[in-house]
Amino acid sequence: MSEKWLVGVDLGGTTTKIAFLNLYGELLHKWEIPTDNTNQGKNIIVNIAKSIDKKLEELDLTKDKLLGIGMGAPGPIDKAKGIIYETVNLGWEKNTPLKDLLEMETGLEAVIDNDANCAALGEMWKGAGDGAKDLVCVTLGTGVGGGIITNGNIVNGVKGAAGEIGHITVVPENGFQCNCGKKGCLETVASATGVVRLATERLNQTQEETILREQFNKDLTISAKDIFDAARNGDSLAKETVNQLAFYLGLSLANLGNALNPEKIVLGGGVSKAGTILLDPVLDYFKKFAFPTVAVSTNISIATLGNDAGVIGAAWLVKNHLK
Amino acid sequence: MSEKWLVGVDLGGTTTKIAFLNLYGELLHKWEIPTDNTNQGKNIIVNIAKSIDKKLEELDLTKDKLLGIGMGAPGPIDKAKGIIYETVNLGWEKNTPLKDLLEMETGLEAVIDNDANCAALGEMWKGAGDGAKDLVCVTLGTGVGGGIITNGNIVNGVKGAAGEIGHITVVPENGFQCNCGKKGCLETVASATGVVRLATERLNQTQEETILREQFNKDLTISAKDIFDAARNGDSLAKETVNQLAFYLGLSLANLGNALNPEKIVLGGGVSKAGTILLDPVLDYFKKFAFPTVAVSTNISIATLGNDAGVIGAAWLVKNHLK
Repeated sequence: MSEKWLVGVDLGGTTTKIAFLNLYGELLHKWEIPTDNTNQGKNIIVNIAKSIDKKLEELDLTKDKLLGIGMGAPGPIDKAKGIIYETVNLGWEKNTPLKDLLEMETGLEAVIDNDANCAALGEMWKGAGDGAKDLVCVTLGTGVGGGIITNGNIVNGVKGAAGEIGHITVVPENGFQCNCGKKGCLETVASATGVVRLATERLNQTQEETILREQFNKDLTISAKDIFDAARNGDSLAKETVNQLAFYLGLSLANLGNALNPEKIVLGGGVSKAGTILLDPVLDYFKKFAFPTVAVSTNISIATLGNDAGVIGAAWLVKNHLK
Repeated sequence: MSEKWLVGVDLGGTTTKIAFLNLYGELLHKWEIPTDNTNQGKNIIVNIAKSIDKKLEELDLTKDKLLGIGMGAPGPIDKAKGIIYETVNLGWEKNTPLKDLLEMETGLEAVIDNDANCAALGEMWKGAGDGAKDLVCVTLGTGVGGGIITNGNIVNGVKGAAGEIGHITVVPENGFQCNCGKKGCLETVASATGVVRLATERLNQTQEETILREQFNKDLTISAKDIFDAARNGDSLAKETVNQLAFYLGLSLANLGNALNPEKIVLGGGVSKAGTILLDPVLDYFKKFAFPTVAVSTNISIATLGNDAGVIGAAWLVKNHLK
């Protein structure tokens, strides 16, 4: 039993990551295949099954080496039923019975969850969570995603929408429009695109000379990285922008802390790589807005697994399910 | 086994509620004793044990009728260790080993949790929760308390401070001072005292003729009930005050919904009895600030158990622990 392996799959809109791990979460083999979303996504699961079989063959192993398959999928999940309510880029119909499809095509026992939740489980098991059983993961990328773990289990919620941390309302009045339909979501100000939006708004409101304006006038665009670089170089408009982002993020994290008092809040994604220029003010606002016990007992740290978090968390689903 | 009873205890600063329930959560006997916080609170647990023995004697029963004792206590709990970190009104030292004391004095297996968490478990089991396993309870009384249940279990957090919903920061700038040490907490605006504070601030800021000002000039004080009554009678300052409270409460509940997507959010406490004059605008703001899936799948309802929620939830602790 202890020599059996887990399969972790991180299903993305363009690429699917697949990995074999042992029961201790050590990554033994990992590879990627393109996600084929033609033909209403009907090839996606078949391709994964074929790819696993091919890898086993290469390794001169048979399927009974594998204990089960876990998958993180991009959309809200009904875990009990094993269905994915909806996806954006895969071509699948609503309420696709993902667990059953996986089990049929691979012949393995399957467990599914949302991709952001799997990333959180990965960080809990092998990453920055360091085994903490109460953990909140926030991914600051092109959007803002999240996963919430309480008592060692993912919180899915009644319709799989738990962990929608990017859609916490942080600007209740006159906020930017969000893709989700409402306004003032954390994602509109704390994602890579959000921080650019904050900077652009400031550029439009003032005539102040700034590194960012020079850059914008030259390239007609600025990136999140440009803003953090300019802030590091002392540019005042960039510093104000970063401070504004930190205010919104620190407030949101503090309020998650006030509700859940997790051992750790783990920040991942591109924006989290900005380093102390962002983290220091985020911590200051977190401490300002957190209940005193939470301010001293809930720690904020940076994700360590990068792109592997998803497959590791997906493998954890199997390990946890079979225990 | 099915004829055995559970003991539920709701420990308060002045009164301790005790009840015998069957395994189906039916309240068979309930009574109260004063909480004796003299002598560094050393009599509290002894008095509870004596009172249970006396009740058994009255009923001509012996202790083996009782399966175990659950207690909700006023302070943050370390559930694994069975200690209460601190209490305000009981005279106990920090880190009192409450579970051990209860077991020693009563001879029963004991399970403890925070009192607000027990109320949430009570509502989950026998009240407005109606069995929902993802549930948030918010008590709007002289303060604002809360309990969060995910996957059927209370979220305690790393230092027992989970569920501090009253200390969610809803007024990040220029908020009222809160007893907890920070500013702008939900409790400063959405408790019975909070809504009076909001109304008083408005009275001080305008010269507007209002029912509330007449009342204030006559009695030198107004109550939460006065404000809701005046709003019902069309008083514009009172209506604006209630709307402001609804904005803060709706925003906080929506953000809890965005994080947890619970099946139900249950509102209890005196302020929740204001009825539709408060609930209708709270629901409007909730829907405005909630992620679309959350807005349609997370329901807000009113607590049904009143003061019995605590003992029922405490009894649940025992039932759940022994299953």
